[in-house]
Amino acid sequence: MGFKAKICVGFCLFVATLLISATITLGSSESNQEMMICKMKCEQTIGIDQEDEKPRCIKSCEKYHKEKGKWEREGDRGQRGDTSGSERGWGNDRQQRYSDNPYVFEDQHFTARLETEQGNVRVLQKFSDRSELFNGIEKYRASFLEAEPQTFIVPNYRDAEALIFVANGQGTITLIERDSRQSHNIKRGDLFHVPAGITVYLTNTDNNERLVLANILHSVSVPGDLQIFSVGGGDPESSFFNAFSHEVIEAAFNVDRESAQKLIGQQKQQQDIFKKATKEQIRSLAGEDKGRLWPFGDRKETSRHTSIYKNKPSVANENGILHEVDSKDFPDLQDINVAVSFFNITRGSMAGPFYNTKATQVLMILNGVGRFEMACPHLSEQTTRTHTGEINPRYEQVSSELRHGTVVVIPVGHPVVIEASGEQNLEVIGFGLNSDENEWFPLAGRENVLSRWEDEALELTFGFPAQEVKRVIQKQNQKLFFKGPARRGRASG
Amino acid sequence: MGFKAKICVGFCLFVATLLISATITLGSSESNQEMMICKMKCEQTIGIDQEDEKPRCIKSCEKYHKEKGKWEREGDRGQRGDTSGSERGWGNDRQQRYSDNPYVFEDQHFTARLETEQGNVRVLQKFSDRSELFNGIEKYRASFLEAEPQTFIVPNYRDAEALIFVANGQGTITLIERDSRQSHNIKRGDLFHVPAGITVYLTNTDNNERLVLANILHSVSVPGDLQIFSVGGGDPESSFFNAFSHEVIEAAFNVDRESAQKLIGQQKQQQDIFKKATKEQIRSLAGEDKGRLWPFGDRKETSRHTSIYKNKPSVANENGILHEVDSKDFPDLQDINVAVSFFNITRGSMAGPFYNTKATQVLMILNGVGRFEMACPHLSEQTTRTHTGEINPRYEQVSSELRHGTVVVIPVGHPVVIEASGEQNLEVIGFGLNSDENEWFPLAGRENVLSRWEDEALELTFGFPAQEVKRVIQKQNQKLFFKGPARRGRASG
Amino acid sequence: MGFKAKICVGFCLFVATLLISATITLGSSESNQEMMICKMKCEQTIGIDQEDEKPRCIKSCEKYHKEKGKWEREGDRGQRGDTSGSERGWGNDRQQRYSDNPYVFEDQHFTARLETEQGNVRVLQKFSDRSELFNGIEKYRASFLEAEPQTFIVPNYRDAEALIFVANGQGTITLIERDSRQSHNIKRGDLFHVPAGITVYLTNTDNNERLVLANILHSVSVPGDLQIFSVGGGDPESSFFNAFSHEVIEAAFNVDRESAQKLIGQQKQQQDIFKKATKEQIRSLAGEDKGRLWPFGDRKETSRHTSIYKNKPSVANENGILHEVDSKDFPDLQDINVAVSFFNITRGSMAGPFYNTKATQVLMILNGVGRFEMACPHLSEQTTRTHTGEINPRYEQVSSELRHGTVVVIPVGHPVVIEASGEQNLEVIGFGLNSDENEWFPLAGRENVLSRWEDEALELTFGFPAQEVKRVIQKQNQKLFFKGPARRGRASG
Repeated sequence: MGFKAKICVGFCLFVATLLISATITLGSSESNQEMMICKMKCEQTIGIDQEDEKPRCIKSCEKYHKEKGKWEREGDRGQRGDTSGSERGWGNDRQQRYSDNPYVFEDQHFTARLETEQGNVRVLQKFSDRSELFNGIEKYRASFLEAEPQTFIVPNYRDAEALIFVANGQGTITLIERDSRQSHNIKRGDLFHVPAGITVYLTNTDNNERLVLANILHSVSVPGDLQIFSVGGGDPESSFFNAFSHEVIEAAFNVDRESAQKLIGQQKQQQDIFKKATKEQIRSLAGEDKGRLWPFGDRKETSRHTSIYKNKPSVANENGILHEVDSKDFPDLQDINVAVSFFNITRGSMAGPFYNTKATQVLMILNGVGRFEMACPHLSEQTTRTHTGEINPRYEQVSSELRHGTVVVIPVGHPVVIEASGEQNLEVIGFGLNSDENEWFPLAGRENVLSRWEDEALELTFGFPAQEVKRVIQKQNQKLFFKGPARRGRASG
Repeated sequence: MGFKAKICVGFCLFVATLLISATITLGSSESNQEMMICKMKCEQTIGIDQEDEKPRCIKSCEKYHKEKGKWEREGDRGQRGDTSGSERGWGNDRQQRYSDNPYVFEDQHFTARLETEQGNVRVLQKFSDRSELFNGIEKYRASFLEAEPQTFIVPNYRDAEALIFVANGQGTITLIERDSRQSHNIKRGDLFHVPAGITVYLTNTDNNERLVLANILHSVSVPGDLQIFSVGGGDPESSFFNAFSHEVIEAAFNVDRESAQKLIGQQKQQQDIFKKATKEQIRSLAGEDKGRLWPFGDRKETSRHTSIYKNKPSVANENGILHEVDSKDFPDLQDINVAVSFFNITRGSMAGPFYNTKATQVLMILNGVGRFEMACPHLSEQTTRTHTGEINPRYEQVSSELRHGTVVVIPVGHPVVIEASGEQNLEVIGFGLNSDENEWFPLAGRENVLSRWEDEALELTFGFPAQEVKRVIQKQNQKLFFKGPARRGRASG
Repeated sequence: MGFKAKICVGFCLFVATLLISATITLGSSESNQEMMICKMKCEQTIGIDQEDEKPRCIKSCEKYHKEKGKWEREGDRGQRGDTSGSERGWGNDRQQRYSDNPYVFEDQHFTARLETEQGNVRVLQKFSDRSELFNGIEKYRASFLEAEPQTFIVPNYRDAEALIFVANGQGTITLIERDSRQSHNIKRGDLFHVPAGITVYLTNTDNNERLVLANILHSVSVPGDLQIFSVGGGDPESSFFNAFSHEVIEAAFNVDRESAQKLIGQQKQQQDIFKKATKEQIRSLAGEDKGRLWPFGDRKETSRHTSIYKNKPSVANENGILHEVDSKDFPDLQDINVAVSFFNITRGSMAGPFYNTKATQVLMILNGVGRFEMACPHLSEQTTRTHTGEINPRYEQVSSELRHGTVVVIPVGHPVVIEASGEQNLEVIGFGLNSDENEWFPLAGRENVLSRWEDEALELTFGFPAQEVKRVIQKQNQKLFFKGPARRGRASG
């Protein structure tokens, strides 16, 4: 008792000291103070005989602090982009401001999972780590892979279903299934499904161009967590075989230690999973016989492969082209519950407003520069509860600039407009997550939802005679893609 | 400065004193200490110049404490209503006592999401916000909509599948699907499925009666969160078009600013989504040609509509009637994984005991007054862990009075009895959530589960000769609905 | 500065006081104190104008507290088994060290839910309570049931789908479905599906042997929570009928109080759900006519029954036998999304390395002694984020001794080896959770994944000429089961 009391007094004096110095020297925020107190408690309250527990305790403080910081960064300040005409535009200066909204992901939201001279894999943070608004898509992750010319990516498998879109370059992809090996030459626009646990290897067979893949992954183990499994690239520590006892590996392969060592690897090796391949190796890996199946057994494998260009465009006019592939076209998409849309928006033009009925759409910008605007219901649950006087929903604008590598999440039902700058076409690959029975509906132009309302519904809603409202609704006769403000002769910024 | 420091020292001494005395005199729980600390903090940390804030601060302590107490009570003890004969009854005086159990939702658990003179929408709090016991139904929400006579509800869509039950009144409902507009006259007992993202509008076409809908929603975006999307009712801030830049809307509709303004709305407008309609508008919206489809394309739409009265009653006797609709009768129910039951219990009679094998049943009381009793396993996980001496499950009674607007959740497997008062029939709409392959089993009366046991099972379980037990089990020859205690000639309270 | 310091001193004295009194009077845990302090800080440091943030802040305290508790219980000490040859082996002395890793569950991770002289039910803790790594299988639970000879287990139902594997002994099982009663004699290797809400009773009909069941349960109500419902075993408090008012039960069964009492039970009764049965009762319950259906109605019931020995072994050689049953063989497995594997590993032999593509495998050790080794990706998400310099995944060994009653979780994709000791065969029942479209792949021996790679892939990955690598990969010509290190003539510890 007296013992505990003394620890406690010591602890508090220590708190005092630390806080004073922290305050003087760092001017740290309350949140930092909290972390410091947390850490001090680790120091003081964990007994000397449990010395090993301190680092973990301290780490837990940091984790909590990081979480809390995230809420503060995201939760309070507005997600509202500025909509006054004078601030619209394509300048980089306002990038930082926009990056606060949880719907937009930039470079800093990616983690380099693998990064070498020959290539890199960048994985976007968990959507649900960014915001609770994304709890419905917590099992999904997005990533980019880039491989330099003449590079081989060593065989690996993941605990996730992967959907691969070839955004740039060409090469080959090989899947090792139970009874077959499937190899295909790949090019821009190709889509591949790599099932969880299926070993895949890739080669950039081109001499000059980078191979760029945009991927959606659907975790099948821990929701939103991804693990990659490989026998490494020659570095023992990066081979899963190395995690087993020597005797076990020797018994499994029925070989002696020296032979087993060949599988586990050697320190002297180049350690990356990206490997520079020789011209001979490239030629062999990219041989003409690719694209077929080599059955080892008699089971029939379906093709894991299609192209976004397989179907005619769903929409095409002078302002843009939309290609779509869903599970009716490519049954593998059912396993990952994703539909794919590829927007090519003419410079100065725009797509939408439109919305998705059931899918959350993840847009990954591949080429060009642009912006998006989205209507976001403002009247959150919380607000409603505290201000019972509120009656109607309110909408706020979320907007951001778009450029190569930006990722934007458009939740179910949220009306969105995507604009290309006046300089370049804007190419966007869109993955509709939880896409089962999803449809998209235009809110302007041909076939827009409002055009199906009865006259009385228009009249009662807008407070104008139905004919007047219909004149506005029916004026635009294009579908989905329209001339943007820029092409209509207005200043855009 | 010195001021604050002194407050603090005082505060701490005060804490010490209070805690010591509290411990001695009250043996109070940590939770009470926590409330006391909270209140003290109100006293001490709010400056003298903010004297007015103290009562509010103290109130917030009490509120938090009460909430917390509720969690604790719900977790371990007090879901038990009082079962001694002298306290049963229909009086209002004991309402408050019952309202503490997490299975019963009253007025205070609803939030008015939309509320005007012409009507209101009241949405029940998230089930999982009430208790972790409802984590399995976190995607579902319940709501009531009431519209005054001759009222139009402006077109809107939601990020949720909705199942609508017409509890009272009549009107028309219109769904705008991809290639069709579907309108139906609706009346008491009708069921509609409004898919996520599908625009719907409603009219109460009656001159006198309110239209009352009881709804179950299944969120498809953020689990348990609901967002409504509409172009408002003339108020710019309540139109999602208003969230876009002027230039964008003008470009999308290819119109000038003045025309665009008609879509976005004007401040002078009546701002509600409930609109008083003229007789002409009502006549047109409720025209004879309703109930058909107007195809805009060649795609076939299935009907989103059925009635609880479509099938013959599952059970009907002098004590009550049960109507049921499941996904075999109405395939749309698969999308929302709900089955529907409508109980009309004769005054003085009762339904059950019965239980559901896989569904959690949400009962919404439409008419009449009654009570329910439910058997709740007492031996929670927590209890088991701490008292390893415990061996058998225990059951406690959860009970509450029922009246118009009460919502009750009956978890999977929990035996329940629903009684009507002696004054009126009790009408209850029941939504079985996660209903896939659900069945309900009676625990008394004809076809009750015990009547299928072998004699040896009865004997070994009850410790009486099988014939004696069977005499008890087989005495009641009605199914599901029985004379309640009141009709059997006993005092009910 | 001085200002902040003084506040801080106050705060710390306050902390001191609180901690002292808490320690004296309540002996409350450090962890609870921490949560209280955390919550107070929420109250204290968040301004009145930010009232909305308090619940979030308080919730964060609770979350952190819960997390921290979990880490402390489990996580601190290493999950790395020792792999140096001298420490491998079967001794009990190192058990404690291994039991710290979250993948292995021993006696202390089970809770006795029911425990009497006649038998016991032991339920494993929630997987997700052990570690967030198991969030993907949070709906599943594992349990063992043991019943003494000539014991009857009274009828009961659960709010979970149950898959029962008969690990030892023989008896009868009876399921009461809507329109049928289904009874089967059961023996070692039998598999039964007991759907949620379906009443089941069991008899150990043998005179000498214990009946031992290994079960997987899939909760259908609260994820991971299990509730059992029964009319008890004569003890009023363990009958759900006792939770209802007397009048209600009397009305439901249309009997007087004395008769109703027979259903509710009497204190003098033996209170257990395990009942010693007489020879006559056993004879009747285990009669020749069992194994058929008694239809009460005209609905067709499918069989809930199969045997792990139904199919020929998937793999069988001198080193082991694998029997498998999946939903193609036994459609009921779809409802619970589980596949079943039964490994009988010859003494001194081993199974694997292999991995599962989509299922998390729960291994329950039935007989024998052994060990397992598993390769675990070391490069956790956290590590990646903080050390952006890291590039490649790393794998660590997780290993543990295995003996009767040990439960091991093998996550998706993780390569694993299971070894039998040199003394005895090792019998393991494996339940593949979330098994839809799961496959297992061998990583050594015949048909191993590496043998399907192209030569260039082998060459580029391992840095040796393909022929050299293939010589290692192709040496072992058995499938899945191999001679273990012990049988190959090495010391095993």
